[in-house]
Amino acid sequence: MFKITILGSSGALPAFGRFPTCQFISIQNRFFLIDCGEGAQMQLMAQGLPYHKIDHVFISHLHGDHYLGLMGLIFSMHLQRRTADLHLYSLPGLDEIITLQLKHSKSALNFNLIFHALPQGTRALIYEDDAVTVETLPLLHKLPCNGFLIREKQKPLRIDKAKLQEGMLLQHIAQLKQGLNVHDDSGQMIYHHADFTLPPRPSFSYAYCSDTAYFPALTEHVRGVSLLYHEATFMEDERDKAAETRHSTAREAASIAAEANVEKLIIGHFSARYRDLSGLLAEACRVFPNTELAVEGTTFTLEE
Amino acid sequence: MFKITILGSSGALPAFGRFPTCQFISIQNRFFLIDCGEGAQMQLMAQGLPYHKIDHVFISHLHGDHYLGLMGLIFSMHLQRRTADLHLYSLPGLDEIITLQLKHSKSALNFNLIFHALPQGTRALIYEDDAVTVETLPLLHKLPCNGFLIREKQKPLRIDKAKLQEGMLLQHIAQLKQGLNVHDDSGQMIYHHADFTLPPRPSFSYAYCSDTAYFPALTEHVRGVSLLYHEATFMEDERDKAAETRHSTAREAASIAAEANVEKLIIGHFSARYRDLSGLLAEACRVFPNTELAVEGTTFTLEE
Repeated sequence: MFKITILGSSGALPAFGRFPTCQFISIQNRFFLIDCGEGAQMQLMAQGLPYHKIDHVFISHLHGDHYLGLMGLIFSMHLQRRTADLHLYSLPGLDEIITLQLKHSKSALNFNLIFHALPQGTRALIYEDDAVTVETLPLLHKLPCNGFLIREKQKPLRIDKAKLQEGMLLQHIAQLKQGLNVHDDSGQMIYHHADFTLPPRPSFSYAYCSDTAYFPALTEHVRGVSLLYHEATFMEDERDKAAETRHSTAREAASIAAEANVEKLIIGHFSARYRDLSGLLAEACRVFPNTELAVEGTTFTLEE
Repeated sequence: MFKITILGSSGALPAFGRFPTCQFISIQNRFFLIDCGEGAQMQLMAQGLPYHKIDHVFISHLHGDHYLGLMGLIFSMHLQRRTADLHLYSLPGLDEIITLQLKHSKSALNFNLIFHALPQGTRALIYEDDAVTVETLPLLHKLPCNGFLIREKQKPLRIDKAKLQEGMLLQHIAQLKQGLNVHDDSGQMIYHHADFTLPPRPSFSYAYCSDTAYFPALTEHVRGVSLLYHEATFMEDERDKAAETRHSTAREAASIAAEANVEKLIIGHFSARYRDLSGLLAEACRVFPNTELAVEGTTFTLEE
């Protein structure tokens, strides 16, 4: 299961009950956080999400609305007696910010913080396990800033239970799921994997792109993803403001989605000038119809 | 007018919709913030308070639940084009924490941040203008920690309008309000102030005491205040836990209030173990009946 829960949809200035950027990712029993704006821990609690299970936190850049909730989350994990390592992925600087605050609060955490300094301006593999990869994506912002591309690896073949035979051992089934044929002691093939398996379930992908100006070079990196989150701080009538502050308009976000032929688009990081977000949604939908707004508490599930 | 609005009543771990510690003070058209826990800016906005008018922020100590909302508030003031100086009063360390985060976000603020390094363990005058003083109060906590005592100075005499006479000049009235008699050019007294004035309106005082273990030496410092806020993280059945973590029980907070003969007590900084706060209130009220709970959004007004 691959789920993205929006915990903050606001631009730099929180407004109208919208919180700064934070997303909770649940993917095949791994739990990630992408960005961690102020109030992230309260939002995680309010949504009943298992924040103590988060092992990897990915921070796009060091504007406050993308990381200021991290220190509070770390302190709360400590108070709740977390012992598991916590991995933090960020451009350099976050480690210094956290270390200084731990020093002044005389805190010795119960768990290890493991900082991973991210490169900038390139696509790089920054996390990999047997089922999932996370890569950075180049974005175009006032500060160095990374997007993140989270992909499921190809999943195992599924056993076609109707075809299983008497005498098959668990180890045979495990081999078949891996696409291996089973041989007997004399080396003769006794089960061909194609006879007992169904194709794997589909693998999904999620690209997170915030904060960024309209950046056509991004298109190739997010081509065909299942779900694209692209910031849309402004509408087209504020296009100059968007360019000046290195943010995107809703139409620009939708253009990237359309050019990259993604399956679905979420827009977020809304300016405090918009109480009502329907104009942003309409503007994006004219270019890319399968667009939704990021709304606090909404979960997007990637499944067949 | 002297008003205290509670923006956060939670202990270190936010829970049940309670936010970390923050209080907004409005006193004779001055606007102060005491502590600034995570989410303070969202709480200020949610309560419709004029946060751009805050000129002085007093931070008790450098545990995250008392200052982590400050950086976000500063960034938001900047985004909203604040130009007025902002004065920050804290034990040393906060300046370094803020400066480092400004550096990594490459932010040059539109306004001046003026750090005032507080002493610790003593009572000291840290702010004074023509109507108000703020002093530190010694507390007993795991980290160095200051309470704050905010007092109105004696107010001017009130003119008894019914007694005003023909021919009195505005400058005469101003002199009378200051308790001065008015003389004519020959030096003869023409108006005695006592004949034209009523006593001043009463001056009020507010003592903020968080975080602290039960600390009887505090009593003399808060004697007779109009309103005492004293932390009550635990109930008596967790008295050992309170002592170990240098926090107070509700009964201990009420004992200070009773010994100091204050007019009213507010308790707050509640542990996340208490969903229902009525037990804490009852425990305090048995010792000091005029006690209320700190609740987000509640305003306490000090007036006749």
